[in-house]
Order: sequence, then structure tokens, then C-alpha cells
Amino acid sequence: MKFIYTDTALLPETMITATAQKLLPYVSHLQSVIDAGTYDAAESSINLPSDTGILKKVKDLKEKVCPARPKYVINIGIGGSNLGTKAIYDAFFGAYDMLEEERESASRMIFVDTCEEAFLAKLVTFIGKLQKKEDVVINAISKSGGTTETIANLEIVLAAMDKRFPGSLDRIVITTDEGSALWDIAHKKGVYVLTLPKQVGGRFSVLSAVGLFPLEACGINTAAILEAAVAMRTRCVSPDPAQNPALVSAAILYLHYRNGKNINDNFFFLPQLESLGKWYRQLMGESIGKDTDLDGRKVHTGITPTVSLGSTDLHSVGQLYLGGPRDKITTFVSAATSRYEARLPETLQFPLVDLIAGKRASQIMDAIKEGVKIAYTKQQQPFTEVILDTVDEAALGEFLQFKMIEMMYLGKLLNVNTFDQPHVELYKVETKRILRGV
Amino acid sequence: MKFIYTDTALLPETMITATAQKLLPYVSHLQSVIDAGTYDAAESSINLPSDTGILKKVKDLKEKVCPARPKYVINIGIGGSNLGTKAIYDAFFGAYDMLEEERESASRMIFVDTCEEAFLAKLVTFIGKLQKKEDVVINAISKSGGTTETIANLEIVLAAMDKRFPGSLDRIVITTDEGSALWDIAHKKGVYVLTLPKQVGGRFSVLSAVGLFPLEACGINTAAILEAAVAMRTRCVSPDPAQNPALVSAAILYLHYRNGKNINDNFFFLPQLESLGKWYRQLMGESIGKDTDLDGRKVHTGITPTVSLGSTDLHSVGQLYLGGPRDKITTFVSAATSRYEARLPETLQFPLVDLIAGKRASQIMDAIKEGVKIAYTKQQQPFTEVILDTVDEAALGEFLQFKMIEMMYLGKLLNVNTFDQPHVELYKVETKRILRGV
Repeated sequence: MKFIYTDTALLPETMITATAQKLLPYVSHLQSVIDAGTYDAAESSINLPSDTGILKKVKDLKEKVCPARPKYVINIGIGGSNLGTKAIYDAFFGAYDMLEEERESASRMIFVDTCEEAFLAKLVTFIGKLQKKEDVVINAISKSGGTTETIANLEIVLAAMDKRFPGSLDRIVITTDEGSALWDIAHKKGVYVLTLPKQVGGRFSVLSAVGLFPLEACGINTAAILEAAVAMRTRCVSPDPAQNPALVSAAILYLHYRNGKNINDNFFFLPQLESLGKWYRQLMGESIGKDTDLDGRKVHTGITPTVSLGSTDLHSVGQLYLGGPRDKITTFVSAATSRYEARLPETLQFPLVDLIAGKRASQIMDAIKEGVKIAYTKQQQPFTEVILDTVDEAALGEFLQFKMIEMMYLGKLLNVNTFDQPHVELYKVETKRILRGV
Repeated sequence: MKFIYTDTALLPETMITATAQKLLPYVSHLQSVIDAGTYDAAESSINLPSDTGILKKVKDLKEKVCPARPKYVINIGIGGSNLGTKAIYDAFFGAYDMLEEERESASRMIFVDTCEEAFLAKLVTFIGKLQKKEDVVINAISKSGGTTETIANLEIVLAAMDKRFPGSLDRIVITTDEGSALWDIAHKKGVYVLTLPKQVGGRFSVLSAVGLFPLEACGINTAAILEAAVAMRTRCVSPDPAQNPALVSAAILYLHYRNGKNINDNFFFLPQLESLGKWYRQLMGESIGKDTDLDGRKVHTGITPTVSLGSTDLHSVGQLYLGGPRDKITTFVSAATSRYEARLPETLQFPLVDLIAGKRASQIMDAIKEGVKIAYTKQQQPFTEVILDTVDEAALGEFLQFKMIEMMYLGKLLNVNTFDQPHVELYKVETKRILRGV
């Protein structure tokens, strides 16, 4: 993975370096968390990728629950419990589900992350038509063990399963904090359980059992994800900004935010990474969207993350981005190479655009992306660029780890608690009151 | 459709009324455009839903191309050429494609709106496995006739079709402006052609042949969409703000934008309407994201539209929205009733959340939405609310027409040209230079 910003971030290098410099004590702290290798610190999610014990547990359980790959993996979770898994699954399969009727390389994953009634009604019908119970593995994930939507959906799915295959608790894996009420009941019922470290919050949990189990069950190479994340972690705790993309990226986001840019557009020239963008949306939204800083001051801090897809969204919001307000700092994400090839014929039937005959589709995408970069620069719209090697497990592992450490740096610069989310309680309290009918 | 804002928009009623008042001459202008019934004015897209000639042409062509419903409709278009179609298709089918293996009520639509190589490679493989050419109808849409991605994708799809079924031009329908270069070639080749009125821009074209043909080919009831749009149009040209949701909604967006809120979050408590949100994203982004106003002043005007899905995204960006910066005006969208039913069992296996046993899933969603509204109000975050009757053709037709007229009012209030998009040329010029290799 390359991270490029010189000349395009529209900030003096000295200013970026000075900002990165302020973080050096925190860089040392992250290194000490890695050295300890435990799960005590708030940042301890960075120890997940090198924790071989987790992957072993996950693989052992997978062998027990589904020695042969199941046709379907039903993933019941919401927010941090499914966004990382969905990011990786969709990068490989989600965008093409309908084009791969007889897929052989992986199970289909069905994400149950809403209580919307049409979706659930169709899911119940779908379960009612399954041929045998071994065709499906159900993974329900709730860190706290009490997420309303997840518990409700687990019950709906279980009822549908029990109706189709009486006695199907053995198709379920629960992932939750050790000792949660969900953990308790699952143990009493003899349901398979996986846990994640208490200190690891949902939005930092993709490399724990939360993401690893469903991805392994699908047949995705999670070891390659973890290996690449470890290598990226090493880069992202380097005290040298030239070696540390997370440090520099955080500094650039911070400086532009301080200059009044309140939107970070994540512009993927890879539509299959839309869900990866949504994973980042939670990471940034929850980590730095805070009303109070660490000194107790009301600050209402936060950058609103948006996800755009190239080249598609140039035909949707390109006009706004190039002509509209100067309120955005953009991150372009693309890949250096594609593992697939699609080429235009040498002789066109509708020769209406110059110079595309015989070209690979990726050459056209690249020309558009380069054109956009020049237009952004001419319009004085700042951006940084992330170039993945290609779309594979390693590249995704790198990106996930890069962004999680970037967010820790950004939270530190903004002087907020990167790891809590107190305001989500506000509506939950009201919802519970409404459900109680008072 | 209901539009609700009292007490939640956090603006004095007098201020909203005074702003709406300023638009009365423009309201009269819209009425006169309807009275003329022609396609001369910039606003003439409002004449589409009552233009019975268009639907007749579309239906006649559909009878010719696919008297029996095809298995697949391949929609090649980008931006205004596909977002409206995708909004409607996805509302009914997109979110559930993988749950409906043997769907009977509609064709599957495949949207080809990217030159991303993995997608196109898989699409070519998919076409190579089709059983007979009548299984597919291909609709390529480009208003100008020269959209790079659309022409490139048409060539790739055609080459794949010709390889599988030599001579398959009769499976293609081209939708473009009369007299465009694409129109010309299509006519010479004897390919089926549909047109749209010149004055109707892409983002206002969903109710023209652009949206109607692919939706009809799929088996969606477009007449019901149009009928509801006509009724909504009547509401949205009423001079009485109490009867006119478009007028009031535009006034509220405008006033909050003037107060410094540069983000309009469209928060759908119906995940199947995500694509409808993306259709609106283009409508707002391109219509009012302008660097110059009608008096030639550099203004860099624009509200950045975002799309959130309830309740899912409360677990992602809820913290940011409730605790973060006061930079958003939110539009909640939900439906009064669901046409489906999914209910929790009376006896729960994991009784971890109070009072959900036996409830319908929609009751849980409603309680969450009501909880969120109370939390927004307590946090002084302004919002309006759109309540669809249900998710059906009529409700979608209403929403589309409501929002297109709202945008005309908003552009007028902001004193910009609502109908052009000059800045998208900036990157296209660079891209063409790059493709030429200079």
C-alpha cells in the first residue's frame, strides 16, 4: 500500500511534520502496548493481528461447526459487529453476488443488520426453503450481548430455523464479551461461543473473532489479512513520518479540519470497496464525533465521513465536489493492479469516444482518476491518495490496520476519547421507554 | 405521503412562511409550465408524468423487444441515466436479490455503471453462460450519446453477447437525445431507440423513457408511479405552504444552510431505499453545488447530501450525529405501514431485551425511530420527516416528484442555475487528454 500526499494535500510539509511530531509520545505509547502484547490498554486492538491464539480458536470451531464449507453464512450483527466482515466479504463477492450463480470459491454471506420487515419476511421464507441444516451457519455477534436489533433478529432467525429443522441450536455461533448475559445463556444452552477482549470496542474488532469467524466460515483467507495487518502496524508505529502513513494521514485530516473542512470524502475508484468505506465511516464517525473533549470542554468535534465511488459518482456529485463549497478533504483509494481483465474490442460498433478501442477497462478508470486528480488540484481541493497493491486479503488487512491506527492518532490530536460512544445511549433510553409504553 | 416539520425544524413558522412567500412567482411559473404542457422550459421535466405518449411508446417497444418477461435486464448507464431506475428497482428487489432464488414477480436487473474491471470480467463470464438471447434485454442510456463509461460498457457487453449469440443487436434498446451521435448510429444499424426531451436533464429524467423502459421491461407497474407523481405535482405547485411540502422543505433546507449547516442527511428507516437516497444525492449535489450564482458572483454554494439507514447506521454514525458538530439538517424517511410481516416469537430463547417478545419487527423499528427523534430534539438537531404510505410504486412516484420540485425551489432560493453541471467538464477534459497520451 502506498500513501501519497505531497503537493496534493495543499499543506506546507513543515506544518504536517510539526503536527506529526506532537504525536511522538503517543507513538511510543502504541509501541509499548505492542511490546506488552496484552489487552489492558484502550488501544489494545492493535495486538489482535499477531494473536495467533484467536485464529486457532476460530479455525478449531469452524472445523467443528462446518467441516465442509456451508452454502450460506448468516451473519447477525450491526455496527462494529458486522461492518468489518461486510467490508471484506463485499470486496470479493458482494458486488457480484448476482453474477455468480454457481459460486465455488466461497459461501454466500447474508447480513442481517436491520429489523426492516420486508427483509426479515423474505429471510424467513428463504430459511424455510433450505434443503438441509448443514447448508447454513449462523453467527450472531453482540459485544454487549444486549443489542436490541441483534437479539430480535436472532430470535426471528432461530424461530424460522426451528420450524424448518427442529433443534438447530448447533448451527449457531455466538460472539460476545466473556461474562455478558448472552454469553451466560449461550453457555447454559450449550451453544458455541466465541469472545473478544473486553477492551476492544466494536469498531476496532474486525481482526478479532468478530470478523475472523464468519470470514473463515465463508472460506476467506484470514491468515493473509492478519499477516498484512501486522506488517502495516509496524509501519504505523514508526516515529518517522516518512515511514508512517497513519501519522501523516491523521495530521492532514486534523489540519484541514482546523481550517474548517468538516467533511472527509473517501472516494474509492473500486466500487467493491463501498462497504470498506462504510466500515471507515463508523470508525471515524464514532471515534472523533464527540461533544466533550478530554478536558471536559464542550467542543462538538467531528468530521463527517462520506463514501464516494469512482467513476460512477462523478456523474452524481462530481459537480458539487468540483464547483461547490470548499468544505472537504478527500482520500482517493484505488489499486495498482487488477486480478481480472476486461478489454474493449479493437473494432467498436458505436465508435463515439476516442481512443478507448482495445483498451482494458482499468486503463479507462485510471485515465478518469488521473483526470479527476488534476481537476481537484486546479480547483485547489486538497486530497491524499491510498494505492492498494490490488484487491486481495493482504491489501484489505493493510488498509484496515492503517485506518484504525490513523484514527487513534486523529483522536489524540483532537483531544477526544477515541474509544467511547456515550451519545448512542441517548436514543436507546428513549426507545426503551417507548417499548415499555410509558 | 406526509411531510412533518412543526416543532422539529427548529425554525420560527413566520420565517419559513416568509421564505416560501418569496417563491410565489416561481410557483406560478411552474404552474404555467404545466399549463403549456410542452418541453421548452428548463423545468419541463414536470410534464413527464402526465405525458401519456411516452408510456405508450415504452410499452409498445417493450411488447416488441420482450413480449415475455426476460430473465435479466442489463441496464447500462451512469448518473442520471440509471440512478432513478436503480432507486425504484432496489426498493422492491435489490436489497433482497440473494434471498429470492426463484423470483417470479420481476426480471433481475443488472446495473452496469462502472468500468471497474473485476465487475466487467464477471459480467462477461455471466453473459457467456446465458441460455438463450431472449433471456436478456440490454438498455444502454446516455443522454448526450457520448458518456465514456456507458459507451465502453456497451461495447464490452455487445462483444460478449455477440460471442455467445452472434447477431444480438436486436436485444438492445438505446435511450438518448434525438439527433445525438449515438442516436444516429443506432438508427443506421436498425437498433431500437427511445428518446427523452432535450430540456430534461439526466437527474430529472427518471419519469421519461430513461426510467420507464427498464422498469417496464422488469415488470414494474410504471403507470402507478406516474399517476402518483401527477397528484404530487399538484400539491407541489400549490401557492399555499400548508398544502405544498416541496415549498416548505426547500425553505427549511435553505434557512439552515444560511445558518451554516452544510450537510443534509437523508436518514431512511427503510434500508431498501438506500438507492433512492443516492438518486437524491445526485439531484441535490448537481443542482445546487455551484461555484457561481445567477448574478455571476463566485459563491461556491452547495449542501452535501448524505444517506443514512436506520436503524443500522445509528450503530455507525449515531454518535457523530448526536454528539458531533451542529452542521446537519436531517430528513427522516419512513413508511406508515409495511406490506410484509415478520414477528418475534412469544417465547424468546435469548430473553435479553425487554418487551420485544411477540412484537412485529416494524414495531421495534418504529420505537427506535421515535427514540431517535426525541434524542435529536433534545440535542437541538433540526429535522423534517417524510412518511410514505408504504413502499410501493405510488409512494416512490410521490417521493421522486416531491424532491424534484423541492430542488427547483431550493435552487431558486440559492439563486443558482438548478439545471446545469458545468464543472463535470473539468475532469473530462483532463481524462481525454490522458487517453490521447498528451
